[in-house]
Amino acid sequence: MTADAQERADDHLLDGPVTIALIAEQAGVSAPTVSKVINGRKDVSPATRARVEAVIEQRGYRRRRGPIGSDPGLLDLVFHELDSPWALQIITGVEQVAGKNRMGVVLSELGGAHRPKQEWLDDVLRRRPRGVIFVLSELDPAQRRLLGTRSIPYVLVDTAGEQPPGVPTVGSANWAGGLAATRHLLGLGHRRIAMISGPADVLCSRARVDGYRSALEEAGLPRDPSLVRYGDFFVGGGYTHGLSLLDRPDRPTAIFAGSDFQAMGVLRAAHDLGLRVPEDLSVVGYDNLPVTEWISPRLTTINQPLQEMAATAARMVLALARGETPANMRIDLATELVVRDSTAPPREP
Amino acid sequence: MTADAQERADDHLLDGPVTIALIAEQAGVSAPTVSKVINGRKDVSPATRARVEAVIEQRGYRRRRGPIGSDPGLLDLVFHELDSPWALQIITGVEQVAGKNRMGVVLSELGGAHRPKQEWLDDVLRRRPRGVIFVLSELDPAQRRLLGTRSIPYVLVDTAGEQPPGVPTVGSANWAGGLAATRHLLGLGHRRIAMISGPADVLCSRARVDGYRSALEEAGLPRDPSLVRYGDFFVGGGYTHGLSLLDRPDRPTAIFAGSDFQAMGVLRAAHDLGLRVPEDLSVVGYDNLPVTEWISPRLTTINQPLQEMAATAARMVLALARGETPANMRIDLATELVVRDSTAPPREP
Repeated sequence: MTADAQERADDHLLDGPVTIALIAEQAGVSAPTVSKVINGRKDVSPATRARVEAVIEQRGYRRRRGPIGSDPGLLDLVFHELDSPWALQIITGVEQVAGKNRMGVVLSELGGAHRPKQEWLDDVLRRRPRGVIFVLSELDPAQRRLLGTRSIPYVLVDTAGEQPPGVPTVGSANWAGGLAATRHLLGLGHRRIAMISGPADVLCSRARVDGYRSALEEAGLPRDPSLVRYGDFFVGGGYTHGLSLLDRPDRPTAIFAGSDFQAMGVLRAAHDLGLRVPEDLSVVGYDNLPVTEWISPRLTTINQPLQEMAATAARMVLALARGETPANMRIDLATELVVRDSTAPPREP
Repeated sequence: MTADAQERADDHLLDGPVTIALIAEQAGVSAPTVSKVINGRKDVSPATRARVEAVIEQRGYRRRRGPIGSDPGLLDLVFHELDSPWALQIITGVEQVAGKNRMGVVLSELGGAHRPKQEWLDDVLRRRPRGVIFVLSELDPAQRRLLGTRSIPYVLVDTAGEQPPGVPTVGSANWAGGLAATRHLLGLGHRRIAMISGPADVLCSRARVDGYRSALEEAGLPRDPSLVRYGDFFVGGGYTHGLSLLDRPDRPTAIFAGSDFQAMGVLRAAHDLGLRVPEDLSVVGYDNLPVTEWISPRLTTINQPLQEMAATAARMVLALARGETPANMRIDLATELVVRDSTAPPREP
C-alpha cells in the first residue's frame, strides 16, 4: 500500500462531520488533493493549497487523531536557534518526559537558514507528532491554525517573558529573580550595585531590571541610571559594559548580570583590569547554567529552572494530546538564588 | 485502516524472496505475528519474539524499504548520556545535515534509566528511521543484526577511539592531538610538562598520552612517569590531579589536560594555590568546546571537530540509506591546535 492510499484511508476513517468530499467540492479540487494538503505532502501547488486551507478553516474542519499507540509516538521540539546557550538543558528536560512516555523527540531549528517555516510545517503535518514544543520561536496565527486543524497541540517554553494570548506557555519568574539577586548583594553590604541587562526590548530583561530597582528602593538607595546598562545576553556584551563600568574612579563594588554569559564577560573585564573577584568586585549571573559551577571563581547566580520548564511543557503538551484541558495555560516556575564564590562583602573603602 | 493492516500491507509489498508466510510457517506462528515482530510492536511474548527473530536471521530475511519520500523522513541520534559535555556540538552537526535533507532528528539517550535498550529498539523498528547515529553508545551484535534485518543503517560517532570491526565510524586523530599540544608547550620553552589524561582504559586517553610522550621524546627529554596522571574527563579530575601536581616544589611549568573540563579543573587548582595562568603556569585543554573562548584566561586547546564529525556521520548514514557504499567505513577527522591566552613561555627560574 502506498503512502497516498494510507492517508486516504486514514482520512476516510478519521474525518469529522465536515468530510473531505465536502471540502473538495467547495474548493473545486479532487478528494485526494484535499488529502495531500491535510497531510503536508509536496505535490500540490501553492495556489491550490491556499484554496483548500481557506475552505478547511471556513468549514471548521478538524482532523481527528487515531487512538494513542497507533502513531509513531513523536514529540516535536523546535528551537529558534539550536546554539542558544541553554538548549541542552531544555532538550534534557523534554527527553526525560518523552523517555518515560516512550516517545521520540524530534529536534528542529526554525531560525537556521536551512529549514524554511513552510517546509518545516509540511514535515510536521506529514510526521504527525503527538504535540509540538516551541522554544523562543513562534508561529504566526495562520500557522497556529494549521496545527489546530490537524489536532496537533503545542506549548511554548518562554524564556523571554512574552505572553502570547491564548497559547499554553511555561515561563519563569524574572522579576523575582532580579529582586533576589539584588537583595543578596545588599545583604552583603554593597551600596553601589550596577546591573547589566539583556536587550531593553526583551520583556524578561525589563522584568529583571525592575526587580533590581525594587530591591534598591526597599533599601532606601537612590537610583543611579548610569549604573544600568542594556546589551546582548552574550559574553561580549558583559565584557564591554563591564569594562566601561569598572574603568572609572567611582566604580560599583558589585555587578548583577542579566545572564551567566554576561557575567563571564564581566569576569573577563575584571581580570583584564587587574580586579579580583570577589575581593574587589562581586558578580551575580542569571540562569545557573552548568558552566557556572566549573569556572573560577564559581559563579553566584539566579537559577532559571530550564530543565523543569521544558519537562513541564512536555507534560502539558502530552496532556493536551490526551484531550485534557490543563488547569493553567500559563505557568511561571520559581527562580532561586544560588550562592557560590563570586560574591562577598565589599572591602572597606 | 489500522496500523496493523498498514504494516501487513507493507510487508506484503516489501518482503524479499523470503516471505512472511514462510517465516511464519517455520516459526509455527501466524503471519500477523511475524509482522508484529518485524515492526517492533508490543503485543508479542518474549519467547515468540525470540523464535521469530531466530528464523528471520537463519533465513536471511531482510525487510525492504519503500522509496525515499514514502517514509516520515527521520534520522535517529542516540547518546549514551545526553549530558555529555559536547552533546550540543554533535546535535548541531547532525541537525545541519538533516535540515538540508528535510529530515527530522529523533533524539534519545540509552544510558539513562528511562529507556531500556529493548524498548528503544522496538520504538526504532516502529518508527523506521532512515538511519541511526550512535554517540558513545553501542548495541550488541544481536541488536545490530536486528537493525540489519530491517534495513536500517547506522554509523558511530566515536570520540573514544575504539574501532568496532565492520561498523561505519567517524572519529578524530587523538594521537596527533596529543603530539600537537605538547609540541606547542615545548616550542614555548617548557621542559617540565605534566599531562592529565582521561581514564587509562579508554583508548583515546592512551592515544593522547602516547602523542605527548612522542613529542617529549623527539625533544630529547626524559620521561618522568610522576608527571602523567589518569582521571575522569571532568572538572573534578582536573582539580584533584592539578592540586597534587602543583602543590610541590618541583611543580611543572605547564599542564596538558585531556579535556577542556579537566583544564578548567586545573585552572581552579591554580587559582586556589595563588598561581597565575599563564604567568606561573601554562594550561592546554582538549576538545575546543565553545566555553573555552568565554572563560578567563581564554583556553589554548586542541580542536576536536565534533560538529563536523557528527555531520560526516549523518552524511554517511544517509548515503548508506540510499544504498551507496561509502569508500571508507572508518574516517578520522583531523585535530588542530588553537592557541589562546592560557599558554606562554615559562618564567625564568
